[in-house]
Parts: sequence; structure tokens; C-alpha cells
Amino acid sequence: MQTTQTETQSETILTGDRATGPLHLGHYVGSLQQRVALQSIHQQTILVADMQGLTDNAHQPEKVSSNILNVVADYLAVGIDPQQTTICLQSQLPALAELTMYYSNLVSIARLERNPTVKNEIHSKGFGRSIPAGFLTYPISQAADISAFRATLVPVGDDQLPMLEQTNEIVRKINSLAGGEVLLECRALLSNAPRLPSTDGKNKMSKSMGNAINLGASEQELRAAVKSMYTDPNHLRVDDLGQIEGNVVFTYLDAFHPDHAYVAQLKEQYQRGGLGDGTTKKILEECLQELLKPIRERRQRYLDDKAQLIEILRLGSQIAQDKTEQVLIDVRGVFGLNLF
Amino acid sequence: MQTTQTETQSETILTGDRATGPLHLGHYVGSLQQRVALQSIHQQTILVADMQGLTDNAHQPEKVSSNILNVVADYLAVGIDPQQTTICLQSQLPALAELTMYYSNLVSIARLERNPTVKNEIHSKGFGRSIPAGFLTYPISQAADISAFRATLVPVGDDQLPMLEQTNEIVRKINSLAGGEVLLECRALLSNAPRLPSTDGKNKMSKSMGNAINLGASEQELRAAVKSMYTDPNHLRVDDLGQIEGNVVFTYLDAFHPDHAYVAQLKEQYQRGGLGDGTTKKILEECLQELLKPIRERRQRYLDDKAQLIEILRLGSQIAQDKTEQVLIDVRGVFGLNLF
Repeated sequence: MQTTQTETQSETILTGDRATGPLHLGHYVGSLQQRVALQSIHQQTILVADMQGLTDNAHQPEKVSSNILNVVADYLAVGIDPQQTTICLQSQLPALAELTMYYSNLVSIARLERNPTVKNEIHSKGFGRSIPAGFLTYPISQAADISAFRATLVPVGDDQLPMLEQTNEIVRKINSLAGGEVLLECRALLSNAPRLPSTDGKNKMSKSMGNAINLGASEQELRAAVKSMYTDPNHLRVDDLGQIEGNVVFTYLDAFHPDHAYVAQLKEQYQRGGLGDGTTKKILEECLQELLKPIRERRQRYLDDKAQLIEILRLGSQIAQDKTEQVLIDVRGVFGLNLF
Repeated sequence: MQTTQTETQSETILTGDRATGPLHLGHYVGSLQQRVALQSIHQQTILVADMQGLTDNAHQPEKVSSNILNVVADYLAVGIDPQQTTICLQSQLPALAELTMYYSNLVSIARLERNPTVKNEIHSKGFGRSIPAGFLTYPISQAADISAFRATLVPVGDDQLPMLEQTNEIVRKINSLAGGEVLLECRALLSNAPRLPSTDGKNKMSKSMGNAINLGASEQELRAAVKSMYTDPNHLRVDDLGQIEGNVVFTYLDAFHPDHAYVAQLKEQYQRGGLGDGTTKKILEECLQELLKPIRERRQRYLDDKAQLIEILRLGSQIAQDKTEQVLIDVRGVFGLNLF
């Protein structure tokens, strides 16, 4: 069962990010805005997934460790409120690793290899059989995360639906072993927002590809990024007829410009000729500069006070520890292992 | 590097058993006697491996949970002294699961599939690709166990040498990432005792095959087991020439009878004819009854006081928690994840 709307009944939400780079505009549109909206209605936990970040970065761990506080600063800068949302760190929650161990005995290697998302990732990362065990098994670890918080609603992109399927399979196996509902099944909360393309129009945004606009991008970086954006390669002169489809500038205007009627008007003009890419890029840049300026400033203020960031993460992790520890005790009980 | 002799220098030893059944004479000869001898010389920890027991028993967890205290009673009954040996329970040591998660990112699926011992086990258990993820990856979990105790010496049968190889590979990877010796490599302590055959002479001893003599076997069970023992199928009458090779009664006499000269004399007589299987079995039974009587009685006394057994396990696990937690902090530090 999936839902594309925010439920009116209060749900338990788990969401999070791999801490492998600072967050960018794709995150903002795809999930961060949604989280800000959800936090006042639901019980929301955000997991900074440092352990999962290591599954394909164990040999360059600083890619993870150096980004933990960046990600937390990103959260706070966009308006996630630690009083409303529990922000916690995966490596500080031992129950997650222990649950992963228990669940690993209920999932076959064949089942993991059938996971279409993992299959794609193995292919795109060029792993083959040299795939780290921790990477192949990360859907089990995600099942541990979700079930450990008794999450009922998990905001995901549609590429992540196989993860929730795997989670619910494990939940049903545990409940069947227990002969009762020890764990809760979860539903996907699909975002209404279409996936934001990279600035080069080619790929998923990624820091390493240099085709993403980070929330902390400087004024100059933002200007350069918009200038280099992919538009319509056949739109060489201002008077040429222009194409909107695949034109990243218009996709971003759709996503970020507050005046939709104005954007519709620009599109019309662009299509019939007479609107240059320089102008559309200028309009987009202004709108993004306005959006990112306060975010960038708040982000920097948080990063200037690392002790505060650490304290927020520590307090959130403490709350999460208590919650996940209780679920671990329940699951351990299913296996008859609560001797003392 | 391996050694077949007890070192004179004090070492840190980790050993243990999967808690999937009570211990039997094979364990007594193969490891328990050795542990009793080692405990006064070395720092010895025995891990009751309930988590590992679940890797191929998750759907019948009572096979594990019901045997934890049996195994502890077996230890105490043969003379393992909780004042000298730390006896602890794997599921009570969260650091082991967490270390397993970190190490999983350093070991490829291909490497796990190359492990000859796991290969054999997959084959003999008929798993194929339906092998549980937790079973394929258990060598990583063993590496976590061994390294978490900073064990330098691990008593194993030669079929377990691939596990120590895998452990040392992980240790070297962590140390290489750290740029220093964070974890210790371990050496195998191979037992001098040959593997004790099953009573039917066919297989490895196993409770489910009904071909093992448990340390807690009753007088009657022991008698029946010796009576049914495989001898020389061509030795039909007392006067027939008998064969010693493959004759389980003589293998057990070699292993358990204190008077080796007497056993040599029996063998000679059996080979030239004139010694019946009834007689040799009677001699073996007497010797085993004498061995097992005090063990059985002590074992029962411990099992009659489960609270004491649990307390021993709890105290040992507390000591082990402190030790393994420290190693976890060190490894987490290698990945830059000691934020708080």
C-alpha cells in the first residue's frame, strides 16, 4: 500500500540520508521540504546514515565522517526543528546492528540479489562479485532501521520501493515466528515532486559529478552552476524556436520559481522564439540566489558552532537509542534470547 | 602461523561453541580438556555463540535458546572455572554486531564464497543460493568475535583455519586503514587430539544424527550407545581375526582409556582372534561410565540451579562487554566515527 498524500492521522515516520556529501537542491525538492511540512503533524525521525554510507566507502571513510555535521547543518538550515524531529546518528544506535544480525538469518542471498535497486547499483558502481558484503546486505540494515523505530510511513522515491518490500517481508517473518504483531509493517509515502535533473541534464545529481547545486553553494558557485546549465542545444540564437522538454533551466524554474503564471509565460515566449538562454538563466539565478541566501547563512552559523550540532545529534541519538533498544528486546524475545 | 603446543608466554585465547545442542565426547576430547588445561596459563574467554547458532536455525530458534544453559553446565561440569575463564553470551555483546557491520564493508561476496569451510557447509546443508545472508557472512562475524577480544591464540580444528585467515585479512585491512596496529592478528592453536568419530563410524558426531554421546548421557544411554557402536563388520565370531582400523570401540579406547599398555594388548588379541566385541565394548563402557559419572552429576547440579548459571553468564558477559566495547571504539575511530 502506498500513499501520495500526507495522512491526517499521526504516523511514525523514518527518513534519512547517507552521510556521503552535503545535501543539494535535489534533496530540497525531493525530501527536505516535505520533512519540514511533516514534522508538525507526525512523529518524525531522521537518521543520518553513516554506517550505510560506509557500505561502499569503507576505503575512504573520511567521505562519510567529514559529512555528518554538514548534513545536520543542512537539515537545520532548511527548517527541520530538532524539537519536532528526532535527528540521530546511525553508528550511535547499537540496536540497529544487532537487529541486522538477527534479520540476516531470515533473508537469502538469492533474495538480496533479486532486489532491482541493488542490482542497478551493483551495475552502475561496477562491483560485480567484488561487491562488499555490507553493500549487498544493506536492504537488511534498512529493514532494521525502519522496524527499529516502528515506522509506519517511509518517504521514498519510487526506486526505493523494493527496500520497503524487503522490510515488510522481514517484519512478516518475525511476526510469524512470534505468533503475533511484534513489528509493524510500513507504507511508502511517495513524494509528489518529480526528480530534479542534474545541471548537465545527464545524470542523477551527485557531488562527485560536479553537477549538483549544494544547499551551501556560494553566490559564485550558484552563478557558475546556472550559467553552465543544459538548455536546448538547437537554440543557438535568441530568435530560434526553443524547446522546453529536457531544458534544465525550465525544469528548475518549474521547481523553484514561486510565480507559476510567469514561468508559463516565459515558456511560451521561449518556444516561439525571442527569449535567450542568458535571460532565462538570469531569472533562474535570481530566484535560486533568493532561496539559498538565508539557507546558506543559517547553515554557516550552525557549522560555526560544531559543539551545538554535536549536542543536537547526541540528544536525538539518546532518544533513538531508548526507542530502538526496546524493539531489539522484543525481537530478541522472539528468538528466546532474553535470558538476562 | 600455527602452533600445536601450548605457549609458555601468556596469550589471550578466544574459543566457544554454537549453542545448538548439548556438548558431547567429541567436544570433550577435541576442545574441553584443552580449555581446562589452558585456563590456568592464559587469559581465556569462552563465547557461547547463540547468534551464530541462529545463522542456520532462525526458523527453529528454540534449538538455540534451549541449549544455552546446557552448554554452560557442560563447561562447568568438565572443570572450566568461571574464576579463571570468562564465559559470556554472544547476544549480550552489542559490540560484536557493530564490528560485524563495519567489517562487512571490507569483505566481498566473492571472498566469502571462496571460503572452503563455508562452501562445504553450504553443500552439506543443501543451501544453494537459498543460503541465509547471515550464514554466508558468519566468517565476518567470527572475525568480529576474535578481534573484539584481541585474541592472539584461537584453538581450532584444521577445518576452521580458513576462518582465522579471513579474520587476519580483516585485521590487516583495518590496521592498514588506521596506519597502525589497532587490531591484533591471531594464530591457530591446533589440537593434538584426532577427531573422535561418531558411534556409527560414519559421520561427524551430531545430536540430530543420534550418533554422539553427550556429556550428560544417562548410564542407560551410554550403555546403549556403546552397544550399538560400529566395530569390524567381518568380525562375526570371537575367534575371527579382527580389524582395528575404523573400529570405533578401539578409537574410543585410545581416546579415553587411561591404561595405554592394556589397550595395546587388547588390540593385539583382537587382531589375532579370540577377543569378542562384547568384551571390548564392556571394557569401553566401564571406562566411559567412570569418566561421565562425576561429569553427569555435576552437570545436573548446575542445571538444578539455573539462577546460578545465568549469574555466571551475566557476570562473564559484563566483563566481555567492557573489553569488546573498547575495541569497537578503536575501530569506530578508524572510520572517523567517534563524534561523541
